[in-house]
Amino acid sequence: MHIVCLDLEGVLVPEIWIGVAQKTGIEQLRLTTRDVPDYDQLMQYRIEILRNHQLTLGDIQDVISTLQPLSGALEFLDWLRNRTQVIILSDTFSEFAHPLMKALHWPTLFCNSLVVDDRNAITSYRLRQQDGKYKAVIALQSIGFSVLAGGDSYNDLAMIKQADRGVLFRAPDRILAENPQLDHTTTYEEFKLIIDEFVSN
Amino acid sequence: MHIVCLDLEGVLVPEIWIGVAQKTGIEQLRLTTRDVPDYDQLMQYRIEILRNHQLTLGDIQDVISTLQPLSGALEFLDWLRNRTQVIILSDTFSEFAHPLMKALHWPTLFCNSLVVDDRNAITSYRLRQQDGKYKAVIALQSIGFSVLAGGDSYNDLAMIKQADRGVLFRAPDRILAENPQLDHTTTYEEFKLIIDEFVSN
Repeated sequence: MHIVCLDLEGVLVPEIWIGVAQKTGIEQLRLTTRDVPDYDQLMQYRIEILRNHQLTLGDIQDVISTLQPLSGALEFLDWLRNRTQVIILSDTFSEFAHPLMKALHWPTLFCNSLVVDDRNAITSYRLRQQDGKYKAVIALQSIGFSVLAGGDSYNDLAMIKQADRGVLFRAPDRILAENPQLDHTTTYEEFKLIIDEFVSN
Repeated sequence: MHIVCLDLEGVLVPEIWIGVAQKTGIEQLRLTTRDVPDYDQLMQYRIEILRNHQLTLGDIQDVISTLQPLSGALEFLDWLRNRTQVIILSDTFSEFAHPLMKALHWPTLFCNSLVVDDRNAITSYRLRQQDGKYKAVIALQSIGFSVLAGGDSYNDLAMIKQADRGVLFRAPDRILAENPQLDHTTTYEEFKLIIDEFVSN
């Protein structure tokens, strides 16, 4: 039995925080884990910025609902779900991903969640678990699945290396240079060929 | 993080083998695990019947593609996927389920698979693993999910009892009598109320 585990941002949809920064004009929200290595520190910083701008979860969701899947992503995902099983493994939050999941026809998503107060302001976040992508791949393998994992970022490397077949998709040069042994593709058409080969074996 | 694991046949779609028996007129295909307790013996018997009638996988898929989801099932599942994450846990075969998954808008499905020969005749089957539904629930719990499991049959009891919340849906009287401690519902509307309560906690 085969299953494909895909990262969300950069693979199927744009980077959500970058989109929010662009749409709100709040440049500080462009910071990513490349700028602030400590994820918790980065998230506390983002939550503080949202609070300072009095932006609620609803405001952010309104912004996110204007984001579109990447060109060709929906067709790719529709093809993939017809071909085999798919789970999206993301470090984003279900409350952010919701409008994008709708645009992608509701694929199954394993991610994290936000904590909001009674005024719908984001006060905190909850990781489903540490190293969630990597551990999800192990869990799927433990129940008889052969896993192909695809992603573009540092937080995808553990799941890509653990998977039975790992693929980098549109990864930055630095990650490619550091991981020359991993397959890399930049188009959905080529990715489909790799998946076709995987599910045929 | 919440996830709902649903049985397929009897919960969202009709019993597939019963449908195949009705559409092909082959009464022997009505036998279920209630008549033949040994699942492997039953499957070998079914495969022999198909061979005797020279029915290929394609023929069976043609029959299955005329089956419809149960009345209200698609609306229920669409509502559910908007509300939380869902995985269908079934003992059927991916090759059988494919047209029904299309009718259900491609939810994620964990099931088993068939082995066919070069004439597309079914020669054997492959379980993903023994006790696949039960072990899938354990695997999901191990990666931080709180699981609600729903089903109607004996092969659902282990996952229903393992889940954080278990629900019988339109179960036969005998199963209800033997499991009076389990919640039971017969309508999607009532099932939605139970799920709403589950995902709110």
